[in-house]
Amino acid sequence: MGHKRTVKITTMKRLKAFLPRRKSRGGSVGLVPTMGALHAGHASLIRRSARENDITVVSIFVNPTQFGPREDVRRYPRTLARDIRIAREAGADVVFAPSVREVYPDGFSTYVTVGRLTAGLCGASRPTHFRGVATVCAKLFGMVAPHRAYFGEKDYQQLVVVRRMVADLNMNLEVVSCPTVREPDGLAMSSRNAYLDADARKQALVLRRSLLAAKALVERSGVRNVARVAAAMRRIIRTAPLARIDYVAVVHPETLEPLKTVAADAVAAVAVNIADTRLIDNIRIRAKGKR
Amino acid sequence: MGHKRTVKITTMKRLKAFLPRRKSRGGSVGLVPTMGALHAGHASLIRRSARENDITVVSIFVNPTQFGPREDVRRYPRTLARDIRIAREAGADVVFAPSVREVYPDGFSTYVTVGRLTAGLCGASRPTHFRGVATVCAKLFGMVAPHRAYFGEKDYQQLVVVRRMVADLNMNLEVVSCPTVREPDGLAMSSRNAYLDADARKQALVLRRSLLAAKALVERSGVRNVARVAAAMRRIIRTAPLARIDYVAVVHPETLEPLKTVAADAVAAVAVNIADTRLIDNIRIRAKGKR
Repeated sequence: MGHKRTVKITTMKRLKAFLPRRKSRGGSVGLVPTMGALHAGHASLIRRSARENDITVVSIFVNPTQFGPREDVRRYPRTLARDIRIAREAGADVVFAPSVREVYPDGFSTYVTVGRLTAGLCGASRPTHFRGVATVCAKLFGMVAPHRAYFGEKDYQQLVVVRRMVADLNMNLEVVSCPTVREPDGLAMSSRNAYLDADARKQALVLRRSLLAAKALVERSGVRNVARVAAAMRRIIRTAPLARIDYVAVVHPETLEPLKTVAADAVAAVAVNIADTRLIDNIRIRAKGKR
Repeated sequence: MGHKRTVKITTMKRLKAFLPRRKSRGGSVGLVPTMGALHAGHASLIRRSARENDITVVSIFVNPTQFGPREDVRRYPRTLARDIRIAREAGADVVFAPSVREVYPDGFSTYVTVGRLTAGLCGASRPTHFRGVATVCAKLFGMVAPHRAYFGEKDYQQLVVVRRMVADLNMNLEVVSCPTVREPDGLAMSSRNAYLDADARKQALVLRRSLLAAKALVERSGVRNVARVAAAMRRIIRTAPLARIDYVAVVHPETLEPLKTVAADAVAAVAVNIADTRLIDNIRIRAKGKR
């Protein structure tokens, strides 16, 4: 349908054989790392990469090392044929979908840990999650050697952690962040939304509503006290009977340190279990001068 | 005197500006990571890199993260002018000597850990040492983006750990190992040899003697029992009154697991404090058929 051909590659050997041929023509490579179950959020990352690079690689790999022992690695949705179609329509040249054995062969024993940034927020309830994320990103960056890698702002802590790793380990690539894509009613796109039944789907809107309320309290009503902002957010979330709060936080946008007062830019972030499904979302808040 | 010019670079910015210019002519880059205090062992690595690559970068950086809290990072010898001369004479194009601040700026918080391989041998008495080694090597590999990196076999565990990291994180370079260079009497070259006074220098020969005895016991006398081999090694080391044994080990050459029986290739390794100076050495043992 006017779309270019998308090559599916499952081994590093084929990837290595394919990419240098393309790169030697002087082209730049963009990487969009995903766990599959692609949605419009991923498609926006792929389109941006396709605009900014000569070759776009979309990796599809449900990375076991970023799931905790009681988490949903097996349950995680796998929809490869559909993913390839979405990736192609968004402009991907390569879908790289390796097996777990290809990524973590016998004897594998190296991990990348990013301190400080990973203690709070999602790191508090998922203690090995960001070690898994950082490690698999380091590996994908090694395999693909991209000039740019694209991450969504929905996973804000992940974005900050990957940026930190790239700077700290002097990796030769640019981390590009892209705005969260939302359903028409405001729910952030997430592969995990597929788990929500009709009732849970409706109640999931409390995440976005609590974040918009936080932004309005700070930016319009001039509230600076984070305890007050967080209390208002919790009240909104608790209107949903299926909601169980993991965290409600207002943090520094780079250090992710919890703030007591919003004096400048901040990020409000929430993680909420709606029935069995853990959802996250965040919003940027800009406090303009003190009241 | 007939040697090419060697450029000294202290910042990543200048390194980045210098290297792509050279690389774009299609040349390969070799990296020899060192902590300075260069000796004939380093020179042999540099010469090999200069033979095998178009550009050779020697990094000189006394890496604080690989020293323990009670170890000798301040005392470690620093001899930059002399190092540059040795590097130039051995064929280096660039001496990269960054400051601690350049390598570890404020906010740095990412570490690379290699499990399993780092629990025993030197890792047992230096619990954060290999984390520091792996991290600084990952950083140097990022900064220089070498095609090949050169490591001496004297630091055998380091060599195995770096190889593992490069494989596990899919880094695009070849780790080249080079034989240990020795003084005429057999003492392995080491920057720490400079700490030895005349008496300690003589007694330091027990390391090499214990390793040669282990090799002879296995390869010539057909001894296969590691306890017997280790006991013989300890007896030899104890003839030196200044010697305090850290470890005496016979391990698998790749997994570094301690062996009970030498059935195939093995590595005998020792770490011994001679007065205040910790020295290490190792030897490859090849058991040819069982007795």
